[in-house]
Amino acid sequence: MEDGRWAKMRELKFIETIMEMVKKPSKGVKIGIGDDAAAVEYSWGKYLLLSADMLIEGTHFDLKKASLKMVGRKAVAVNISDIAAMGGIPRYVLVSIGMPKKFNARAVKEFYKGIKEISREYGVDVIGGDLNRSKTLVVDVSIVGFVEKKFMITRSGAKAGDLVLVTGPVRNGRRTHLNFAPRFRESRFLATGYKVNSMIDVSDGIGVDLMRVCKASGVGCKIFSDAVPLSRGLSLKDALYYGESFELLFTMPARDAKKLLLDLKEGESDLNYFIIGEIVQKKEGCWIIKKEGRKEKLRMDGFRHF
Amino acid sequence: MEDGRWAKMRELKFIETIMEMVKKPSKGVKIGIGDDAAAVEYSWGKYLLLSADMLIEGTHFDLKKASLKMVGRKAVAVNISDIAAMGGIPRYVLVSIGMPKKFNARAVKEFYKGIKEISREYGVDVIGGDLNRSKTLVVDVSIVGFVEKKFMITRSGAKAGDLVLVTGPVRNGRRTHLNFAPRFRESRFLATGYKVNSMIDVSDGIGVDLMRVCKASGVGCKIFSDAVPLSRGLSLKDALYYGESFELLFTMPARDAKKLLLDLKEGESDLNYFIIGEIVQKKEGCWIIKKEGRKEKLRMDGFRHF
Repeated sequence: MEDGRWAKMRELKFIETIMEMVKKPSKGVKIGIGDDAAAVEYSWGKYLLLSADMLIEGTHFDLKKASLKMVGRKAVAVNISDIAAMGGIPRYVLVSIGMPKKFNARAVKEFYKGIKEISREYGVDVIGGDLNRSKTLVVDVSIVGFVEKKFMITRSGAKAGDLVLVTGPVRNGRRTHLNFAPRFRESRFLATGYKVNSMIDVSDGIGVDLMRVCKASGVGCKIFSDAVPLSRGLSLKDALYYGESFELLFTMPARDAKKLLLDLKEGESDLNYFIIGEIVQKKEGCWIIKKEGRKEKLRMDGFRHF
Repeated sequence: MEDGRWAKMRELKFIETIMEMVKKPSKGVKIGIGDDAAAVEYSWGKYLLLSADMLIEGTHFDLKKASLKMVGRKAVAVNISDIAAMGGIPRYVLVSIGMPKKFNARAVKEFYKGIKEISREYGVDVIGGDLNRSKTLVVDVSIVGFVEKKFMITRSGAKAGDLVLVTGPVRNGRRTHLNFAPRFRESRFLATGYKVNSMIDVSDGIGVDLMRVCKASGVGCKIFSDAVPLSRGLSLKDALYYGESFELLFTMPARDAKKLLLDLKEGESDLNYFIIGEIVQKKEGCWIIKKEGRKEKLRMDGFRHF
């Protein structure tokens, strides 16, 4: 998976190339390439949300370690997570599969068991897709969801003075990356009840993904290393720069964050949210603040320099 | 590509397995797996159309023969063709790519040139997707379109007595399969002006695809071999059982077909439609009628038995 990270850096560059090429979408497109999902006009009060994620054997999973059912589950889960990161409700998925010759009907069933399981859990319908032959297993799921315009949360709304929060102890992607629960309930609780300025799902580490938010919003950030909740055995380095956690990372004005934590204390929800940092002016840059005030610059390619 | 056909037969079986597993979609789903695109409730007068198609290096194209631009173009074109086959209007695409390590920014640009070109031609916006590393090039495009409920055409509405038509000389998939023009204008002209009972885009040969329509509609068919318009050098066998033509195949009541051809004669459109057969009762089966009345049974796996 180290390899996957390296590829991620090229991906960032290529995505910029692509964004440059397709930069003038028509006016029905509210959000195009560059957020967790695209948003297009749907009705006076709602946007249609659209996203796609591809999982490739050898790059994202290893069939010697992962069951087909778990791969199917994850392929849908990462997409539900993208819709959740916009504050939206997932509804439909298309599942395209490139399948090795050796796959038989039982393998297809096993794979679809995972897809069915998570689709049922999140109220999503599998309505189509494609099936082809490939040398290695490839799955591309695209998802359609909805979000009330007033509830949509993007990457680009973070403001200096916001606090940075995360929906749970950063999960250890190395262990849980196939079997995670997308933070849909957490997202809707936030989107419908609080002022949230920006949100992203943590696919590449809270350091990398918070920098994405900062870049899109034109701000800087500080992460307080002591405040970052870590799942057991997870190092800070992995939390910052290792992906596949799929927690939601979001920013909100300090007074709203206070209200959120107070509400939780008073038992209004069993959900968890943790403050891990703050948004600052762009010129201040992006930093991780360590014990005794020692600080280090956050880097998009941090895993290579940490 | 012979191999691709063999895989197609397994695909048919696997799709049945999958349809069995996901057969109870919620009530917002008008059409799920099994047509050219899925249709879900959008507004009182419209459905949202959704479809996805995956192209895999080695299975669908060979980069020694095809330029990246052409592959990008085709990846979007096959999806536009799916929306056209429902009588709909394509609007947005998501493009997921699994990309070999050797790809550089120039390769990405070249690929996206084809995507941009056809998107512009058909008024489609590229609004998202995914980018990953893969051993061989894989492209999965998913498309979102719309169709007025009253204009939607499915595979399942063919009726005994309908005539069977095709939008043009069956194209030689072996030659044109990368650089074809989806029959969007032809589709909208039909959908908005005539009574069309069923439609499909020809991806596996008019024989195979007409049998799909017959199966979905619970009817039989006769194709008149002399009436099948062939592009230069194309054999009847290839027209019936070889894919990648992407013409539209449709059925309509005889009086409506007559009206259509009369309207064309009177210059109401520059489009082409050809009558190639008729729909009969299911019990009569599916046949190709050759010269002097000799007939042969159509077969889903016809290319192996022709």
